[in-house]
Parts: sequence; C-alpha cells; structure tokens
Amino acid sequence: MTAPPVPPGPPAATVLLSGGLDSATVLAMARAQGFVCHCLSFDYGQRHKHELLAARALASALSAASWQIVTLDLRAFGGSALTDDTIAVPKDRDERAMAADIPVTYVPARNLVLLSMAVAFAESRNCVDVFTGVNAVDYSGYPDCRPQFIRSFAHTATLATALGTQGRAFTVHAPLSDMTKAQIIRAGAALNVPYHLTHSCYDPATASDGSPLACGRCDACQIRRRGFAEAGIPDPTRYL
Amino acid sequence: MTAPPVPPGPPAATVLLSGGLDSATVLAMARAQGFVCHCLSFDYGQRHKHELLAARALASALSAASWQIVTLDLRAFGGSALTDDTIAVPKDRDERAMAADIPVTYVPARNLVLLSMAVAFAESRNCVDVFTGVNAVDYSGYPDCRPQFIRSFAHTATLATALGTQGRAFTVHAPLSDMTKAQIIRAGAALNVPYHLTHSCYDPATASDGSPLACGRCDACQIRRRGFAEAGIPDPTRYL
Repeated sequence: MTAPPVPPGPPAATVLLSGGLDSATVLAMARAQGFVCHCLSFDYGQRHKHELLAARALASALSAASWQIVTLDLRAFGGSALTDDTIAVPKDRDERAMAADIPVTYVPARNLVLLSMAVAFAESRNCVDVFTGVNAVDYSGYPDCRPQFIRSFAHTATLATALGTQGRAFTVHAPLSDMTKAQIIRAGAALNVPYHLTHSCYDPATASDGSPLACGRCDACQIRRRGFAEAGIPDPTRYL
Repeated sequence: MTAPPVPPGPPAATVLLSGGLDSATVLAMARAQGFVCHCLSFDYGQRHKHELLAARALASALSAASWQIVTLDLRAFGGSALTDDTIAVPKDRDERAMAADIPVTYVPARNLVLLSMAVAFAESRNCVDVFTGVNAVDYSGYPDCRPQFIRSFAHTATLATALGTQGRAFTVHAPLSDMTKAQIIRAGAALNVPYHLTHSCYDPATASDGSPLACGRCDACQIRRRGFAEAGIPDPTRYL
C-alpha cells in the first residue's frame, strides 16, 4: 500500500449521524463548510429504531453524499438503560439530578467506540476529517463528551492509522462542544436544519402512522424542550 | 451511578483473544500474573472462522473465567485482504517485502476499534486492565501495533470512561510488544501454551475432519514457521 494522494475536489468528511438534533446540526455545519459528507449511523442495540429512521431522512434532507448504517452490538456489554431493557429510563428528573452524576443512560465508552469506527470508515475512504455532535454542556455527566477526550482521541487516531503515519493528521470536529442546547438550535435554524425530522427521546411511543411520539419526560426530552423554549423557536416535536 | 468500588479478590482483566499464537501467549501471561481473565473475540467479517474456533478452545484450555464473541462488521468498511474477498492474500513474500510497507492485510484502524470495544467491555465489568497481543517487531507495517499508539490509547481510554473519571486509570498491557516471534514462542512454551490449538494462517484450507490446514505461504504462516524454527521448538501446525 503506497501513500494515497489527497483526493482532488472538495474535502470529504465522515459525519456521525445519530438522528438527534445535535448531529443533524453538525451535518448542516459540515455541509456549510464545504465538506462532502459521508454519514455513519450505528445500530448498537438501541431499544427503538426511530432514531435510525430519523438519521436516514436527515442524510437525504441535508444532501449527504452517502449514508451507511453499521451494526454494533453494544448490548453484549450491558450496563446502560439505553441498551439494557432491565434498567429503567429515568423520568421527570430536575436539572440538578441530571447534572449530579454519570447517568444510567451512559453506554460504557460509547463515543470511544463510535469514533473509532468512524476513523476506520474515514481511513477506508482516504479522509481524515470526522464530525461528531458531542456536547459538554448539557451532558456533562458523560466523560466521553469532554473536549480533553476529543483531543486525546484525535491524537490516538493519527497514531493508529496508515493515513496518520503518512503525515495526514486526523481532526475530530466537535463544533457543538461548548454550545448550550438553545445555541445549537439557533445555529441549526439559521442553516435550515429540518428539526421536525430529528429524534431525541430515550423512551418513545409509536403513533398509529408509525412515527414516534416523544415521552416528554426523559432527560433527552426535557433538555430538548427547554432548548427550543430558550431559543425562542417553536418545538416541532410530537409529544405524548 | 456512584463510583463502583474496586472489587475484592484477584484482579480481573479483559484479554483480546484472536485465536492466534500471540494472543494465546498473552492469555497465559495474564493468568500467570494472577489475573482472572475475561476473553473477548471478534467476528469482524474474517474470511474464515477457524480462528474463532481456536479462540474458544484456547479460552477453555487456559482457564479463562469467561469468553465472549462480539460481532463487528469491519467488512462494511472494506479495504483489507482479510475482510474483502476481492483483494488477494499475498503469498511467498520475502522478509524485505513484508517489512517494506503497510500490507494489504491491514484492516483500517483495527486495533483502535478492537481496543475501544475491549474498554467498553472492561468498564461494564468494573475492570481497567486490558491485555493485547500486539507486536511491533514482526508486523512493523501496522501503525496500530506501535507502542506509542498503545500508550496514547490507554490515556484516551482513561479520559473516555466513568472508571477513569473516578480515578482508575486504564492500563493496556502489550507484553509482546518488543519480542520476536521466537521469543514469544519460547515464553509461551514455558507457560505450557497449547500451540497446537492456535491458528495463524490468513488463507487456510479445511481438512476432511473440519480442522484447518495452514497454507504455509502467507505472511502469517511464514512468520510463524520461522518463529518455531528459531525458537528450536517443533511447529505443531498442520500445513497444506
């Protein structure tokens, strides 16, 4: 394998797209910066598939060059309410309870695993830019959302890869890192992100037409609701 | 989630067990150091399943506390002769050709992905020791086998996890890092590693009894053969 040349034309990026409002905003930001975007979503044993359907719709609506879903059985590792049916999703917690501790919805080392897969995907496409919607403000309890983790990971990825060895350093773009949910929503609205297509709820019901109904009470719903209210932008979410 | 206590009793470790002779030797070393070993093998779209069967037999023979197989479709990323049927496994290469470049059997960022999964697995078991058989001597063309990658990864893993945040740093043990294949085989033989159960060949045939027959010509077979010869230990491999 010889050093692959940097491809001509607009730069390519790998975008982690969960189907939530953060990653949808990141995809719009990457597009606005001129990147050709290859989106990657994970079926990691989530309890529900609504967010994967949302990711597909968003990749199309935001003109991604490609969208791929990768199966990854984090459920085999257990330990999180998002993948383990025996742990209840917490509801109606106040802000202090949310901020106090690492939540039970934490999936062990999830961003480490997902970013590693993104790097493998990026390297096989001769691309060293990776975009993620991690955010250190609203989810401060998740250790793998912190900027010092993101910086350390990019350095490790450069050491791990053939592209890095050949002098092309990986950049992990985390443009939402220091933004509040309201700031993210305002930035996304300015880029015409179709927020009605995004999905946040950890524990949705399904409407008679198959679309999701958000519970309105889990941490994700509460943070989302408050974000739209603070941004002064109507919340397009359908709640139970 | 409150800080989990360090469990009483002997320390636990997660061991990446591929079924090859390197990881088998590492498992024996971890056991000899007193670790209770939880082994993790990956079905990552290898062309053949002989090495997974070897991993199962080795976990049992070397008294691992548990063995788990995780499906991980690296094949979705393409780009390697080990996962992509359209790329031929190179045969009969001399040492200089093997050492010259990153081989086509390189799976993009494989160790980054596998170690990340090992950290997720370890964290869900309240354990911060991870053993890997990566080796920088024989496979110097693989960037994610280098000690500087291993060190950087352990630092990143500590930043990525709840356990790390709570003051328990991850250690990635790579005891074979600076050993030649002959040194590895001598060390393993002293620990009674059942090398007849290990599998190295990238392109094996299957004997009439279902067991593998090594090709004897791919890089892995050549390195293995030479290792046994240099160690002065009979090679128990069945070759074509």
